[in-house]
Amino acid sequence: MEARLADEIFDTLRMELRRGSLVLAVLAALRSEKYGYTLRKSLADRGLEIDEGTLYPLLRRLETQGLLDSEWREADGRNKRFYRLSSAGRAMLKQLHAEWNRINDSLDGIL
Amino acid sequence: MEARLADEIFDTLRMELRRGSLVLAVLAALRSEKYGYTLRKSLADRGLEIDEGTLYPLLRRLETQGLLDSEWREADGRNKRFYRLSSAGRAMLKQLHAEWNRINDSLDGIL
Repeated sequence: MEARLADEIFDTLRMELRRGSLVLAVLAALRSEKYGYTLRKSLADRGLEIDEGTLYPLLRRLETQGLLDSEWREADGRNKRFYRLSSAGRAMLKQLHAEWNRINDSLDGIL
Repeated sequence: MEARLADEIFDTLRMELRRGSLVLAVLAALRSEKYGYTLRKSLADRGLEIDEGTLYPLLRRLETQGLLDSEWREADGRNKRFYRLSSAGRAMLKQLHAEWNRINDSLDGIL
């Protein structure tokens, strides 16, 4: 297989692998309140890069689903939208974390 | 939040979480040759249920990408399409497995 094609296929599969875990990472990170920039930074510091075009739609969706609360407040002299986990979000995080552990156990068995 | 709505949201998020890991599981399972039914059974035995409507398009895509080889042969008195990992597939599995470990390390840090 041509190397560049293999790279493209890897990038696609890697994105798929990451996509599902991002929701879990975002919910976990928002156990403490953050705004967009501090959330992205805290995920990137752990090795999970997420671009703004992916993060903001995800935050809106999670808020629509009732898993996040948000509020506008000033920080560093500018208005920022702060997000944090709602009580429904905390319950969901617990369920998804358990599911993640199950998937990992399955994969460990297969790999 | 209404319980049934929470269940629906959980199901959606769980599907997203599983989707990425399925490719990894399928590639790993096909280090030894299998046909559709034996592949589904080996994944289900490890706790990863995958319906036919998801599995067969995935197998076709992975074969188009050059990650799987397939061949028609008889088994149990009927013709079956047998799949196994190609050499490009083995290289990809190795890369994706490493990526999976990185994602897990990141999530462990966040969770």
